[in-house]
Amino acid sequence: MRTAFYISDGTAITSEVFGHATLSLFPVEFNHKTIPFVETEEKAHQIKELINATAKRDGEKPLIFFTFVNYNLTEIISSANAVCYDFLTTYSEKIEKELNVAPVPKIHRTHSIHEKSYDFRIDAVNYALMNDDGGNIKNYGEADIILIGVSRSGKTPTSLYLALQYGIKAANYPITEDDLETEGLPKCLIPFKHKLFGLTIDPERLAAIRDRRMANSKYASIRQCRIEVREVEMLYKRNRIPFLNSTHHSVEEISAKIISDTDLERRKY
Amino acid sequence: MRTAFYISDGTAITSEVFGHATLSLFPVEFNHKTIPFVETEEKAHQIKELINATAKRDGEKPLIFFTFVNYNLTEIISSANAVCYDFLTTYSEKIEKELNVAPVPKIHRTHSIHEKSYDFRIDAVNYALMNDDGGNIKNYGEADIILIGVSRSGKTPTSLYLALQYGIKAANYPITEDDLETEGLPKCLIPFKHKLFGLTIDPERLAAIRDRRMANSKYASIRQCRIEVREVEMLYKRNRIPFLNSTHHSVEEISAKIISDTDLERRKY
Repeated sequence: MRTAFYISDGTAITSEVFGHATLSLFPVEFNHKTIPFVETEEKAHQIKELINATAKRDGEKPLIFFTFVNYNLTEIISSANAVCYDFLTTYSEKIEKELNVAPVPKIHRTHSIHEKSYDFRIDAVNYALMNDDGGNIKNYGEADIILIGVSRSGKTPTSLYLALQYGIKAANYPITEDDLETEGLPKCLIPFKHKLFGLTIDPERLAAIRDRRMANSKYASIRQCRIEVREVEMLYKRNRIPFLNSTHHSVEEISAKIISDTDLERRKY
Repeated sequence: MRTAFYISDGTAITSEVFGHATLSLFPVEFNHKTIPFVETEEKAHQIKELINATAKRDGEKPLIFFTFVNYNLTEIISSANAVCYDFLTTYSEKIEKELNVAPVPKIHRTHSIHEKSYDFRIDAVNYALMNDDGGNIKNYGEADIILIGVSRSGKTPTSLYLALQYGIKAANYPITEDDLETEGLPKCLIPFKHKLFGLTIDPERLAAIRDRRMANSKYASIRQCRIEVREVEMLYKRNRIPFLNSTHHSVEEISAKIISDTDLERRKY
């Protein structure tokens, strides 16, 4: 199998996203290898040796997706026995022409702590944890959004993703059978109706997820899941609460959709 | 201020990472605007109008970073009054030549649920939550890694990031004053010594973080923070536990460093 390397003087997250997006267009399997924090010429020479050894072992040149700020490191890695893709240099030249401004490359610029948004994100994670699963209802005034849904419909991972990636303070509140017995919203949510966003899920998928948690229970039965899902969707519609079905979507997709539908303000770009 | 758009038929996460990495090289401020899920020609025409209106308002052509699978959508957006950067097409052509394989573009390929790693990630998030802050010590056999450190040294956000991004089961255990009074590791951690990774932090930063949580307390005093940090670092060294200082690093950097230092197996690429 051919090897794809993602290499950088920082986290290599940018190289990974770039390489992964491009390679995923091809019906070919790769052996993926990420090498972050290549910050010295000595380390770069070691990595070059590793690349050359990999080329020999595979019988094919590895593909290298890299981002370096220091041009000396670019030169060392580019001299390895491999095919190199350096999108950052390519596009920074294009953008330099358009902006008519010279780039001022700084190391650790993209995924480092220097972004002013950093404290927001950590605060948002702490908020999401404290306000997970209906905890601390008294903090809802501070919430940017309150996700609601039946147990195991995807509220917790979505809240955490919104907090970690975007610095959004996301609380979440589980809609229980007791809540569904009355026709209205749970009383504690009424003052925050404008912040509510509902999640729903196909009953079959819900039953499978619940069964892994509590096998052969009423809680995990398909009948129970069907009732809860039908009733919670009626609750959303009756109260005009925006909602989406999480069944076929990743936490990245659900989060992007929520932000786009609600015009939530992101604290990180 | 000039506007930068990140547009896609999916989450637009790839466009954002690509655009942000490139623009962050320049000492220029932009008005950032992300538009995900542009999946129909009708929607693409609406977005084209928005781009044109923005160009008129700004008095400058917006920069557009986009990724589309459907070429008709590419054509519509490219015909707007803007400067477009389409790295995916550029690089997929280069890679097609190298691999000698035609691309098979599929929508929602990069950040969707179809990755086989998806259940791993959700399981890992649930694991990290259940095993946050020393909860459920009996589950440590299942951990991929156990982060340790004094209160507020960055364990929780790092555990959650490792879980959400990489599907790594990360527990975390707080080292308390009681633990520091004896010279050895807490008893419950000894069988899992090979899974331990320590975090430390500058006492000044720790005191500032703790003060926001519990102002003017002994817990937040600089003296207390200095003692705890000195002792926990001695504990790491005495027991040969790898550790890093989180003060100047983002959760992305800390996570990348931990994975790279420990050769942890990632369940997502």
